[in-house]
Amino acid sequence: MAKDQKKQPRPKAETPKGFRDYFGADVTERKAMLDRIAGIYHRHGFDPLETSAVETVEALGKFLPDVDRPNAGVFAWQEEAVPGGGTAGDWLALRYDLTAPLARVAAQFRNDLPTPYRRYAMGPVWRNEKPGPGRFRQFYQCDADTVGSASVAADAEICGMLADALEGVGIARGDYLVRINNRKVLNGVLEAADVAQGQADDVLRTIDKFDKVGRDGVLALLTTGRRDDSGAQIDGVGLSNAQAAPVLAFLTSKGSDNAATLDNLAAAVGASEIGAEGVDELRQIAAMLAAMGVAEDRAVIDPSVVRGLGYYTGPVFEAELTFEILDDKGRTRQFGSVAGGGRYDGLVERFTGQKVPATGVSIGVDRLLAALRAKGLAGTQDTGPVVVTVMDRDRMADYQAMAAELRAAGIRAEVYLGNPKNFGNQLKYADKRAAPVAIIQGGDEAERGVVQVKDLVLGARIAAEASLDEWKSQPAQTEVPRADLVAEVRRIIG
Amino acid sequence: MAKDQKKQPRPKAETPKGFRDYFGADVTERKAMLDRIAGIYHRHGFDPLETSAVETVEALGKFLPDVDRPNAGVFAWQEEAVPGGGTAGDWLALRYDLTAPLARVAAQFRNDLPTPYRRYAMGPVWRNEKPGPGRFRQFYQCDADTVGSASVAADAEICGMLADALEGVGIARGDYLVRINNRKVLNGVLEAADVAQGQADDVLRTIDKFDKVGRDGVLALLTTGRRDDSGAQIDGVGLSNAQAAPVLAFLTSKGSDNAATLDNLAAAVGASEIGAEGVDELRQIAAMLAAMGVAEDRAVIDPSVVRGLGYYTGPVFEAELTFEILDDKGRTRQFGSVAGGGRYDGLVERFTGQKVPATGVSIGVDRLLAALRAKGLAGTQDTGPVVVTVMDRDRMADYQAMAAELRAAGIRAEVYLGNPKNFGNQLKYADKRAAPVAIIQGGDEAERGVVQVKDLVLGARIAAEASLDEWKSQPAQTEVPRADLVAEVRRIIG
Repeated sequence: MAKDQKKQPRPKAETPKGFRDYFGADVTERKAMLDRIAGIYHRHGFDPLETSAVETVEALGKFLPDVDRPNAGVFAWQEEAVPGGGTAGDWLALRYDLTAPLARVAAQFRNDLPTPYRRYAMGPVWRNEKPGPGRFRQFYQCDADTVGSASVAADAEICGMLADALEGVGIARGDYLVRINNRKVLNGVLEAADVAQGQADDVLRTIDKFDKVGRDGVLALLTTGRRDDSGAQIDGVGLSNAQAAPVLAFLTSKGSDNAATLDNLAAAVGASEIGAEGVDELRQIAAMLAAMGVAEDRAVIDPSVVRGLGYYTGPVFEAELTFEILDDKGRTRQFGSVAGGGRYDGLVERFTGQKVPATGVSIGVDRLLAALRAKGLAGTQDTGPVVVTVMDRDRMADYQAMAAELRAAGIRAEVYLGNPKNFGNQLKYADKRAAPVAIIQGGDEAERGVVQVKDLVLGARIAAEASLDEWKSQPAQTEVPRADLVAEVRRIIG
Repeated sequence: MAKDQKKQPRPKAETPKGFRDYFGADVTERKAMLDRIAGIYHRHGFDPLETSAVETVEALGKFLPDVDRPNAGVFAWQEEAVPGGGTAGDWLALRYDLTAPLARVAAQFRNDLPTPYRRYAMGPVWRNEKPGPGRFRQFYQCDADTVGSASVAADAEICGMLADALEGVGIARGDYLVRINNRKVLNGVLEAADVAQGQADDVLRTIDKFDKVGRDGVLALLTTGRRDDSGAQIDGVGLSNAQAAPVLAFLTSKGSDNAATLDNLAAAVGASEIGAEGVDELRQIAAMLAAMGVAEDRAVIDPSVVRGLGYYTGPVFEAELTFEILDDKGRTRQFGSVAGGGRYDGLVERFTGQKVPATGVSIGVDRLLAALRAKGLAGTQDTGPVVVTVMDRDRMADYQAMAAELRAAGIRAEVYLGNPKNFGNQLKYADKRAAPVAIIQGGDEAERGVVQVKDLVLGARIAAEASLDEWKSQPAQTEVPRADLVAEVRRIIG
């Protein structure tokens, strides 16, 4: 290889465009958060599932069959002729979410898995899309789904579990809210409004704009249209005001409590059977959440949840963080959504032909982690190591013994392994490692059976803040008998 | 999508060839093992690094530049023209190990990372190779490396840390051994044997067969050749017996303790300077391990470690599990190697032109996990959930309340969410879930304010073993007041 390299220009040491590396606390903080969520999911009877990163494009099944290269949004490649390996010509791809592999697993192992099958999955997914700020081509997802249960008890359970998970990672009660709606109620509203088949999609699209344009905006868009901020005329759907009324009633039916909201919804769906079914489902979910001890300040029926209503087939839910943060421009705004989900059919159907009801939730890992960081809740007890400096290259074994003693006492510790010639470099290294303590023992100290223990945190504070007098009374460096090394370090970092 | 699907045959629900899915304990047992190892690495001052799964083929750099498709052993594909994404035509690939990404990171972030940089990495890697029994195209690696230290203190530290890690996951002292050798000693032996430049590779290849053919076999292969088991003549390297002597002395220089081994090695390398340097390095490593409290029954100098000697440039190490297991054919054999590593140069050099010394170890995740399973050490406290059965579909909220109470008490619990009509199916489900306890409350029990608690573990034992009399004295199902539900479940599973 070395010979080939010489003929070649040097390769660039670069993360591929749209990908990133995670260092130290990036890794441990995310891991700590996911571990806590996994603990909550596990306690609710959910089992972990880890599928491989690679699926057949056929199983992923997002792509049109007549496209030559199924690359729309995924990283895909064709199998080579590997002896005994895959079939040459088959397309493989990196999974773009955790739901498609679940569908494949639920179909493939349907005779082995319990029914219903509760599973959680956490791991990276890949999107061959344009990267942007905070938008990468590989990112984590964290999903929990129940496959094979048509009961809304499954939905209620997931809503309660989501609330528990948010508290589990440290979000205080009152700082989050799980909001619950139902696609069936919306369908009932469309029936009540006598919306023509061809108009339903337009109405759905308009409803999705409720968060942005508000009640009056939606009314205008449902009927005759409106001018947007740029002055451009947006066509309306063409409903009459009477037709638009149930839709608006639906969107604004949030009452002071679940009971009031449910009454408003019952009115909005009028005589629609599917609508009444949807309201009844929400009523059951509300009752079950109450029975589980999940009060309305944690999870609440809220018909203004419209995100994903077009995709899901029954209950939908969304978790929002309600505390305020400063945005890029220094304005306060609500942190917003960190998780969403709902009930969907057809998960397994494309494989087996059988409809299998399923419901699930996906937590936005990066967003929730960002929220924890904003609240100062992401920190693990990840401190830098105690750094044992090297004054005398020949006594490396002595320094290793010190580090080993500290580790045996449960203290993170390491010996400086760079070139020890320049002692200043060793302290700079300790600083870069965020070391709380440095240990120093030269030949003189070794002879006297002592060791210098330098409190780097206190030292930095003294250097930054204190006057000379205070420095004298609070020495950042103490000499202790070698036998007291562990006790002294413990005193400082304890 | 649904419309397209109807025109298409149904996709196969299949894991791609050579890949697999991990369910439940597969995931939690591996995770528990890696978490313990990460804890040990962290305490030694190593920081986690998580690079993306995808690298540029250029940065991976394993491939010949004149090959049209750089597919030898990796999954690779060409970037499409994604607006704002990667550069169309660039080759990307899934990482095939964790060392190549470390090299890229060490070069890319060399001004930001501490020097030396200690890092650990755990995660999947991908090989586009022929799968076989226990051999998959995606598997886990678990590496720890120190980049930027030429000191053998770094090697000693990794050997000690490896011993700690094996004990950390539960391997008892005496059931493992870290064996340490040095490429420089071998180079010294080659000098002492006056091996011609062109013969060195042949000698290395022969040495690699020591484990298989033993001392006499190696002697024959180094000199005039030998017949193998099939009767075929294998050519010898053509050394004289005198030339072969230092090589054999090297391979068989293991003494009763490190001191004796080191003396034998010093004799084997004769007047070779590089050989003496190698022996001195091993002597330092031995001294440092002793200082760290890692005795020779845990990590020992052993010149018979020849695996990887051709690849590494200084110390090499291998961890073996010394207990016996039964192989596929029912014969007892030593479990064998679970980790290996050593010192290597040129990690970063191909990017920057600068030689950066590095040393590291890689634990065979699947092999170590198999060892833990063989010893009954892999088990996490992963029990099935308490299953609250559903006798009355309309009282779902009551059942949810029971499960919530149990969970609040830290007990894994779930409500049966399948079709409750057939109660037998509910108990079959509980069995499939390995539930320790089932909770039953029909309308009658609800009225009387009681609940049935069924001990499924005891029930299974009684069904399998006990006579009718014993059954009577040990009821597997008890009725308790509803308020005592949690206490009764705790009594059973506690």
